[in-house]
Order: sequence, then structure tokens, then C-alpha cells
Amino acid sequence: MIDARAQVEQTLTAVLNRARNGNCPPRLAAAMDHAVFPGGARIRPQLCLAVGGACNADNPRVALAAAAAIELLHCASLVHDDLPCFDNAPLRRGQPSLHAAYGERLALLAGDTLIVLAFQALAESITESPARAAELFEIISRGAAVPAGLAAGQAWECEPRAGLRDYQRAKTGALFVAATMAGACAAGSAAEPWRELGERLGEACQVATEVRQGPPSAEKLKHLVGLAVDAIPACPMAAELRLLILLEARQYMPTVHSRRVA
Amino acid sequence: MIDARAQVEQTLTAVLNRARNGNCPPRLAAAMDHAVFPGGARIRPQLCLAVGGACNADNPRVALAAAAAIELLHCASLVHDDLPCFDNAPLRRGQPSLHAAYGERLALLAGDTLIVLAFQALAESITESPARAAELFEIISRGAAVPAGLAAGQAWECEPRAGLRDYQRAKTGALFVAATMAGACAAGSAAEPWRELGERLGEACQVATEVRQGPPSAEKLKHLVGLAVDAIPACPMAAELRLLILLEARQYMPTVHSRRVA
Repeated sequence: MIDARAQVEQTLTAVLNRARNGNCPPRLAAAMDHAVFPGGARIRPQLCLAVGGACNADNPRVALAAAAAIELLHCASLVHDDLPCFDNAPLRRGQPSLHAAYGERLALLAGDTLIVLAFQALAESITESPARAAELFEIISRGAAVPAGLAAGQAWECEPRAGLRDYQRAKTGALFVAATMAGACAAGSAAEPWRELGERLGEACQVATEVRQGPPSAEKLKHLVGLAVDAIPACPMAAELRLLILLEARQYMPTVHSRRVA
Repeated sequence: MIDARAQVEQTLTAVLNRARNGNCPPRLAAAMDHAVFPGGARIRPQLCLAVGGACNADNPRVALAAAAAIELLHCASLVHDDLPCFDNAPLRRGQPSLHAAYGERLALLAGDTLIVLAFQALAESITESPARAAELFEIISRGAAVPAGLAAGQAWECEPRAGLRDYQRAKTGALFVAATMAGACAAGSAAEPWRELGERLGEACQVATEVRQGPPSAEKLKHLVGLAVDAIPACPMAAELRLLILLEARQYMPTVHSRRVA
């Protein structure tokens, strides 16, 4: 996925450079940069592009706009999750979290700004394909917000009685579902059949982050990835997408690596 | 502006009801409601509709989507401004502020969600008029974010050296500029000539909130409103818009009322 990753970085850089153009408050500009770069694995935007590719997307600009929007929403949510009122996390990806580095006020504002920039980036798709753009806004808004998106997932933490399943599905799964469905929609394919793949990969990602706890999680991860690839709808490049997901998932499997080390 | 106000309330209600449909966390749903209703004067969305009307908007749905988006962004910014790390305000419009009523975490999430809903509402305009929608996203994103929008205005508070003018113009003026420009754009007119009216009314609004401090501010307000109506570009209903703004501004003038009372 080297090309996809490079395309994602390029698009995110362009979005941020454009936003900081002119008389932008310099510390806010720096805080936004800190929130988005160098970034993590960029799984969600690459997944969006991979699904778009598997559906033979005729216009890569639409999928790229969607991919960038999803990653910016993800970055914004990490910044706000790290704030003292939620996780109060001093570190993120081995660096000081945004509020640790720039203070709580700029972390709040940078997160807000990244949400706006996500939709500003997505709006690039309107001139390319209005019909797909309208559906993309719906898919990605629902992934980010309510009733069952990312913000809803966080909000379940604030309910006296919340189902763990509702919480995890919304918090981790929603942007994965947005990524697969947006990828298909950007390619002009029906989005709904791609929901299950997103849900499965969201679950798998949840388990992948726990995988260092030991072999049972690794087994569970394998099982979930198997379910995920089985959920790939019929599309021109289904076999390639299947292979891509399996290869990507292998990076999170501790088996090979730990045997070599141990 | 009674009809415009009713249309704004109706649209905001529809946006929120749709978002809370399904399995939305109930406390988040209630927090969003608290943030948006009963609302203040709804000046920005009514201004957007008034400019659209003055330009003889052929499709009121586009202007309404823009008006609702601008008001939701305004509500989100009030919620986040009231948070402990900024103003730590216990009250808003005579009611407990959102974090006072629902806690800091839900206030943070409700604000984030309202930003997303703003753009989800604006996306309604895509099917109505793709060309206008693309420009509306640009106008409203810039009003809300960076380099010189609402978030940038707040961020100037976090800079060691900030010009008061940059700060006030961005913080109060940006959404007024978005309102006038979006109103024109929604009607299919050129947006740029409407920037100055937004800037002038933003300044006037800033002064109006200080007007109870005494007559000098009232004089300044009259002067600014005069400059504002002089900045109305040529359009089919310019005279009506002029009258509307003058009538609206009179509500903020203490002169007549205070003479009667005093």
C-alpha cells in the first residue's frame, strides 16, 4: 500500500497547507500539524482507497477526498479523547499529546478545526461528482457523529447504563464502516454491501490493539480477519483486496515475529 | 423577520431530530438539544436568509441549509467557549451552560457533533445546486475555521502577541461574513461583494453587546449600522434589506427604550 499511503500524506499536507495559508494564528497552525503528522498507520484512509480501487474507481480524486476527510476526523477524535476530561493522556504515538504540548485550549480548537477541515476536504468531491458527494457526506457524517458514529461511541462512556457492544461498535467501528462504504461510493458502487467489511475490520482493529496481551487475542484476530475477507462483496478486484487485507493484517499478528525473537 | 425565524427553528429541529433518530446515546441527544434550543436571537441564520431574499433566491432550500449550518457552528462554538479551559462560564442565556448541566465530556462531544451536523445539514444543498454547494462549503468552512475564521479568532487568545483587531474580526466577524456571503451564494449571486456588509454587521454586533455600558457605544453602534447598510451591494431587494437591518438594529439601541423607562 505504499502508493496509497503516499497519496494520503500528500492530500493531508495539501489540506493543512491551504488552511494555514494567510494570517493563521501560528500556534494553532503548529498544533494542527502536530495532530496530523507524522500520523499512525493511516489504516482508515488506505482502506477507503483500497475499496475504491477494488471497485475500479474511475475518479481517484473523489476517493482521496473521502480518505483525507476520514483521517482528519480520526485525528480530531484522538486529540479530543486525550484531553484531561476524557483520557488525560500525556503521550500519543510516543510524542507529547496535543494538550501536553500546546495546552488544553489549543488542543480543543485544533480538534474543532480539523473537523471543519475534514468536510472542507470532502467538499472537493462536489465538483467531481455531485451525486456521489451527497452520499459521501451522509456516510462520513454518520461515521463521525450520531446516532451511532464516533462521537456517539464516546458518549456511551457518559451514560449510566451502556452496552459495551454499542460503545465499541460505535467508537472503533464507525470510521471503519465509513471508510469501506465511502470507498465504494466514491467509485460509484453501492455502499451498503460494504458495511459488514468495515464492521469486521473495526472489530479486528480493536483486537489488534490488544494483541500483545497474548496468543488468544492473536487467534481471535485471525478469526476476525477471516470473517472480514469473507465479507468482501463481489467487485472487479475482490481477490486483490482480499490479499491486501490479509497482508496488512499480518503486520498485527505477533506469531511470526515473536517466534523469531523468542 | 418572523417567518425567517420560524423557518430557521424548523430546519434546526429537523436536523437534530434526524441525528438523534435510532440508538443515539440519550444524554448526548439531550445535551445537543440544550445547546441549540431555545437559542438566542438567531441573528446569523436570519441574516443569511435576508441576504438570500434580497438577491431573489430562486431556491430557499439552499439558503436554509446554509443558515442552519452557520447557526449550528455558532452553537458549537458557544458550548466550547464556555468550557473550563476557556471562559469557564456557569451560565449561558440565563440557563446552566452545557458543561454545567451535562459535564465537560458531553459538552465537548456535543460541540464536536454539532460541527459535524452543520456540514451534514449543508450537504442538503448538494443535490439542489452542486455549483453553489461547493462554494458554500468553502465560505462556511472558512468562516468556522482557519486561517481567519471563528476557531482562528479563539486561537488568537492563545498567542503571545496578537492584534486585537485580528482577534475580534475573526472571532465575531467571521460567521457574519459567512452569513452574508452564503446568503448571496445560495441565491446564485456573487458572494464577494457581500463580505463588507458581514464585516460591518459583525463589528456592530460586537458593539451591541457592549451597548448597555452607555451612550457612546450607542452612538458607535448607529455609526456602524450606517456603514453596514451603505455596504449593501446592488441587488433586487436592496431597499427592503436596508430597512430590515435598520429595524433589527433598533432593538439593540438603548435610546428610545431608556428614555421611556427613565
